[in-house]
Amino acid sequence: MRALVTGGFGFVGRHLAKYLVTCGDDVAVTYHPTERGTADESFKTALPAQAQTVSLDVTDGKAVEQLLAVMKPDAIYHLAGLSFVPAGESDPQSVFQANAFGTMNMLQSLVKTSPKTRFLYVSSAEVYGDPRPGSLPLTENSVLRPVSNYGISKVVADLATFKFSHREGLDTVRVRPFPHIGPGQSETFAISGFAKQLAEIKLGKREAVIKVGNLEPKRDFTDVSDIVRGYRETCLNGKRGEVYNLCSGSSIAIGDVLQLLIKIAEVEVEIEPDPERMRAVDITNLLGSAEKALKDFGWKPRVDLEGTLSSIFAFWIEALAKA
Amino acid sequence: MRALVTGGFGFVGRHLAKYLVTCGDDVAVTYHPTERGTADESFKTALPAQAQTVSLDVTDGKAVEQLLAVMKPDAIYHLAGLSFVPAGESDPQSVFQANAFGTMNMLQSLVKTSPKTRFLYVSSAEVYGDPRPGSLPLTENSVLRPVSNYGISKVVADLATFKFSHREGLDTVRVRPFPHIGPGQSETFAISGFAKQLAEIKLGKREAVIKVGNLEPKRDFTDVSDIVRGYRETCLNGKRGEVYNLCSGSSIAIGDVLQLLIKIAEVEVEIEPDPERMRAVDITNLLGSAEKALKDFGWKPRVDLEGTLSSIFAFWIEALAKA
Repeated sequence: MRALVTGGFGFVGRHLAKYLVTCGDDVAVTYHPTERGTADESFKTALPAQAQTVSLDVTDGKAVEQLLAVMKPDAIYHLAGLSFVPAGESDPQSVFQANAFGTMNMLQSLVKTSPKTRFLYVSSAEVYGDPRPGSLPLTENSVLRPVSNYGISKVVADLATFKFSHREGLDTVRVRPFPHIGPGQSETFAISGFAKQLAEIKLGKREAVIKVGNLEPKRDFTDVSDIVRGYRETCLNGKRGEVYNLCSGSSIAIGDVLQLLIKIAEVEVEIEPDPERMRAVDITNLLGSAEKALKDFGWKPRVDLEGTLSSIFAFWIEALAKA
Repeated sequence: MRALVTGGFGFVGRHLAKYLVTCGDDVAVTYHPTERGTADESFKTALPAQAQTVSLDVTDGKAVEQLLAVMKPDAIYHLAGLSFVPAGESDPQSVFQANAFGTMNMLQSLVKTSPKTRFLYVSSAEVYGDPRPGSLPLTENSVLRPVSNYGISKVVADLATFKFSHREGLDTVRVRPFPHIGPGQSETFAISGFAKQLAEIKLGKREAVIKVGNLEPKRDFTDVSDIVRGYRETCLNGKRGEVYNLCSGSSIAIGDVLQLLIKIAEVEVEIEPDPERMRAVDITNLLGSAEKALKDFGWKPRVDLEGTLSSIFAFWIEALAKA
């Protein structure tokens, strides 16, 4: 199967490309032209050698059309976009441009060049935003109440993907992954940031004080390997036009994840609130149900939270040892 | 109460401005700079003399900020935008610009200039799109499945309005009006187009053949006077952050509305399908529930369908007699 992964240099894109290669797919990944500098360096080494790389700005209609017309992929995994939620508040324009119009561009170009291609849109649990009391766990039918520009931009792309299957006859399907973590994630994300600090402490590169943001919010975490497997299973077996939550089905406070990480790291640390890491938290508990994915094609997570946290900690120990 | 109506030269804007003036509000209405030519002519005469008019492009951030800073309205009725659904398919960019970014501009400017202003966003039943079987009538908690770019652009603005109340502390509320009809609506909308043709036939200005598009789809129609009263009641009494459907609670096939109009016109006509009037119809039955508006502030429609159709027919008879 010829698979195209957009945004393939990102955290999840790299995991996905690796997984698809191990599944025997013929994989090409796109990266944004501004990532070119990194293309020959660290990112490229994180991609499997079998994956082809292509520079692509998904908001450039002509470039998208040319690539799709030439490649005519069997499947597209559309991940390209801006994923750091706070950036959407400081620069809404860029987030809408990349996430909303980039996706609509892809869909419009598919209609013209390759209407039989299976198109998987990677949406986000952020589309559900702040749930009303009593409405957990979130299902695919839950009310959308996004509380960030990022969340709104994902709603646009998510609904546009539906619209193109409904109205233009494209073969689309959507996933709404809940927070996912794993080795290689940027330290700007809380769990990866904790693990990096703990690894530094473990290696004696930092005093035994860990800086933290909000510890109270509860999140539904899934290992990135389960998530990318979920993408492929949805792409192969999800029902056309439908949308699927991908999540663990249980939530845990960020502070409790930190305690688990400290236990894994086997270090003694002091926890220090850091104003710079505090975000305005709108969502106190994010908890999903992936019953629909289980029912329709048998997907459920395989890696438990301790397993994930161990591999994240190990990643940072290795990365820092090299540095 | 100082009320600002954006998009006040449109069909609903003019009805709303009149109604607010009769309620004793101090009303200013904005019109798009490109409507300036019409400002001194027919549109202005349709507005009450007491309403001030202001040229404003809602996508122009600086202009919006200046107006709001000077006026500091008690209430804003935000109607400005592009409302003809098919236009969104041929020119998505303009529809997103006006409907989505125009609204976000208004909200962002309010945060800076007049954060206490009550902001009513006029969303649309189009956000619900094509309902799943068995999910009628649509409530405010129904799944959003828009099938047009127009519908998606309204979702963006609708959710952004929620976000600004939730996250930025603005005092916002939203309405989702279902199709509304009344005197003064453009003939590009089916019912008004039927009524105009019947009036022409009645006045002997046209042969007794009426051209029609799709007659099968069922719609939930409300008189525009009930709708604009609903806007004011929602603005005064709707719960902050909430959204309210405004609709009649029953739906009728377009063809049956045509039969009612023919009866009102007291003419004999031949009905002729017109390919130019046929749209790709995605939604076979649009039916809403306005129970929430009834429960929270007692709104329900007062004018029945025959009453509405009679006033639309009378409008065209008068307009054509003048011409």
